Amino acid sequence: MRHQFELHGFTPLQTRSIELASDLLGEGGDTDKEIYGVQRLAAEPSGDSKLALHFDLTVPFARYVVENRSALTFPFRRYQVQQAWRGERPQLGRYREFLQADADVIASGSMDVRFDREMVALLRTTLDALPIPNVRLLVNNRKLLEGFYRGLGIHDITGTLRIVDKIAKIGPAAVVQQLMDRGLTATQAEKCVAVSAIEIRNDADAQRVLDLGERNDLLDEGLRELLFVLSASRNAARPDSIVGALSIARGLDYYTGTVVEGVFEDHPKLSAVCSGGRYDNLASGRSKEKLPGVGVSIGITRIMGYCAHLGLLKETRPRRTPAAVYVLVHAEDEREASEAVARGLRKRGIAALVSDSADAYGKQIRSANQLGVPYVWFPARGEDGQHEVKDLLAGHQTPADPTTWVPTPVT
Amino acid sequence: MRHQFELHGFTPLQTRSIELASDLLGEGGDTDKEIYGVQRLAAEPSGDSKLALHFDLTVPFARYVVENRSALTFPFRRYQVQQAWRGERPQLGRYREFLQADADVIASGSMDVRFDREMVALLRTTLDALPIPNVRLLVNNRKLLEGFYRGLGIHDITGTLRIVDKIAKIGPAAVVQQLMDRGLTATQAEKCVAVSAIEIRNDADAQRVLDLGERNDLLDEGLRELLFVLSASRNAARPDSIVGALSIARGLDYYTGTVVEGVFEDHPKLSAVCSGGRYDNLASGRSKEKLPGVGVSIGITRIMGYCAHLGLLKETRPRRTPAAVYVLVHAEDEREASEAVARGLRKRGIAALVSDSADAYGKQIRSANQLGVPYVWFPARGEDGQHEVKDLLAGHQTPADPTTWVPTPVT
Repeated sequence: MRHQFELHGFTPLQTRSIELASDLLGEGGDTDKEIYGVQRLAAEPSGDSKLALHFDLTVPFARYVVENRSALTFPFRRYQVQQAWRGERPQLGRYREFLQADADVIASGSMDVRFDREMVALLRTTLDALPIPNVRLLVNNRKLLEGFYRGLGIHDITGTLRIVDKIAKIGPAAVVQQLMDRGLTATQAEKCVAVSAIEIRNDADAQRVLDLGERNDLLDEGLRELLFVLSASRNAARPDSIVGALSIARGLDYYTGTVVEGVFEDHPKLSAVCSGGRYDNLASGRSKEKLPGVGVSIGITRIMGYCAHLGLLKETRPRRTPAAVYVLVHAEDEREASEAVARGLRKRGIAALVSDSADAYGKQIRSANQLGVPYVWFPARGEDGQHEVKDLLAGHQTPADPTTWVPTPVT
Repeated sequence: MRHQFELHGFTPLQTRSIELASDLLGEGGDTDKEIYGVQRLAAEPSGDSKLALHFDLTVPFARYVVENRSALTFPFRRYQVQQAWRGERPQLGRYREFLQADADVIASGSMDVRFDREMVALLRTTLDALPIPNVRLLVNNRKLLEGFYRGLGIHDITGTLRIVDKIAKIGPAAVVQQLMDRGLTATQAEKCVAVSAIEIRNDADAQRVLDLGERNDLLDEGLRELLFVLSASRNAARPDSIVGALSIARGLDYYTGTVVEGVFEDHPKLSAVCSGGRYDNLASGRSKEKLPGVGVSIGITRIMGYCAHLGLLKETRPRRTPAAVYVLVHAEDEREASEAVARGLRKRGIAALVSDSADAYGKQIRSANQLGVPYVWFPARGEDGQHEVKDLLAGHQTPADPTTWVPTPVT
C-alpha cells in the first residue's frame, strides 16, 4: 500500500494522535459523540476535555496543511498510515481503535475535477495491488444530488442526504417515510429514492438521471464531474470495477463534490472498506486562502476483520520469526561459534537466530520447525569440520560456506 | 531499525494504544500521574477514567504475552515501533506523544543472563546502524546495588535506588543529604555514592567494588551478571562503547537485574536516548507461570529532537515527494500521453508524478525542482517523436525509452 502511494509520488506523513477537541468537534457532522477525550489521570476531573484522539486522518491533515501552508508546495500530496479512534460499539467492521491508510491532495486556490479522478484511479490501483477480494468502487457527486434536490424544491439538503444515505440499511420504503416525516411531499420523497436507485456504468446511463425531469446548472455540473471521474475506469483492470451509484452520499458533512466508497464485489452488504471524496472547505475554513482537497481512505483493520470473518486469510506455514536461518548450538561452551555464524549472516543481510538451547540437535531442529524457520545451520566443528545447512522444507542437507551461502528465493 | 531487529529474528508486533488504566497503574512506579486517561466526550464526566493511553511498550507487551501465552513459542522475541504518551511538561527530550522502538524477549520458566547480553548486543548493533551520533551504553545490575545496600544494612532498597538515580542530575552531595534525610547514616550514604561513582571497563575494575568491603551472595551474583553482560562489548565496533556504570538505576520499579541506558558520547549530559533491562516479574505477576523478560527501548522522537537541537540533521537537497520522475504535460489535451508514461514507469517500480499544470515547460521544470524530483520526462510528440529525460542534477538531457529506462542509482 505504501509502495503504491509512493509510486504515485505521495509523501509519507504522520500527524499527532491527539488534537484539540474543538478542532475535531467543529468538523465531521455526527461523529461528535464518538470522539474520545484525553485527560491526565492526575488532573482535576473537570469534565471538559480539551484534548481528544483523532477520529480520522482527514481533519488532522487539513489542520497540518493550514499550519504549515507557507512551507508546503501545492498541490501537496501525502499519504498516511495511522491509527484512529472512535467510541463505537465494537462489532464486525467497527472497532474502537483501527488502522487506516489515507492519501490526499490539497491545492491552493482552485482544484480541477482531474484531481478527483486521479484519487479514484489511485484508490483503484492500490486496492488491486492488495491480496484481498475484489472491491467495487461506487462513485457519486454531492452537486448532482444537491442540484436534483433543489430542482425538486427541497431546502434541507443535509437532512435529506443523511436519510437517503440509509437506503442500503433500511430500504427505500422506510427512506420515503422518513423523508415525508421531515416534511417532503410523497412525490419529492419518491423522486429522491428514484434518483438514488440509478447506477451509471456508461454515458448512456446518465440519460436516466435527466429522464427524471429535474434540471439545473448544479445537477448538470455534478453529472458532468461524475462522468469525468468515472472515466478513471478506462485504465482499470476489471470492467465494472468503478460504477456511478447515486445512492452513495457519505455521512460526513465536509464533502462538497465527488464521494466514493468501495465494497467487496462478492459481499456488497458488508459496509464500505474504503471511502473518500472532495472537500472544498475543510482546510479553507481555517485560513484566508482557499485550500480545496480530495482524499481517499482504506480501512485496513476493517478489511482484515472482514477477511478473517469470511475465512479468506490465507493459511500458510506458520512463520513466527523473520529469521531465515536457525543456527544450532552444539554445546553451551561452543555457543560463540554459532553466534559468529549468525553475525556473519546478518552482516550479509540474512536474518538469523541462534538456538536458545544446547539440547540434542533433533530437539533444536524441532524448535526451528515450530518457529517456521526455513533453514537450520550446523556449525563446523573441529579443525577440519565444515558447515552444513539443512533446508527444512526440501529436506536436504548440504555443505555451506557462511561467507557466501544465500537462501534459495521462495517462488 | 526494523531491518536490524528482523535480522536478529525479532517478530514485528503492534499492540492497542489504549489499555485498562488499572493495568497501567499497577506497574511502572512513579508514572501514575503522567498517564493520559481516555473517555468518550459524550460520556458522563464521572472523573474516573477506566481506559488510558499506554506510557511505554513494555507493559502492553507483558499484557499481550500473558493473554496469548498458549499460542506463543517461548522464548518469544518481538519488536515494536509505536507511539506512547505521557503527560509531561514538553521540553527538549520530553514529549507528550513520542515514538519508541522496543525489542523484548520473554521466556517461560527461567531465563539465563545470556539473554540480557543478547539484548545489549542487539541494542549496540541497532544503534551503530543508525545515522546518529555515537551512543555509549551504560550498564548496571540491580542485584549488585541491592546486595551492596543490604550489606550496608539498608532496608529501603527502592527508596534508596530512586535517590541514587538522581546523582547525575543533583550531584553526589545532595544525594548524600537526601539519603541521610531518609534515615541512613553518613557512612551508609557515602558508601552508596562511592559505589555509584565506579565505572567498570574491564574485569580488573570490578575489584574496586569488592574493595569497598561489602560482600554477600546477591552482590556477587549481580557483579558476575554485570561482567558477563559487559562481555557483549567484545564484538562492538568501538572500545568503550559499552561500560559498567554503577550510577545507573532506572526509575521504573519493574527491573530486577540488568539495567541499561545509552547517552550520546559527545553529549553525556543529555538524558538517555535508549534504555532497558531485565524484568523477572512484570508478566509473571498476572500469570501462574514465571515469564521473565528483558527488553530494550530506543527513543526515536527524543533522538530526533536532540539531533535537531544539536544541528546534526543533515541538510540535503529538499525532496518533497518520493517521485523519481516528473512527467511534463505539453498541453491539457495531451495529458493522457503523459499519464500513460507515468503508468508504465510505475508498473516497473519507478515512482512518477505527472505535472499538475500544462504551463510552459520551463515553469513545469521549476515545479519539479521545487519538489526535489531528480528527473523530468519529456513525452514523445507526433508520429516520429521520441521521449527524452533530463537529469536535473547533472543537467544533461537524453533520449529514453519508457519501457526500459531506469534512474541512475544515487551514490
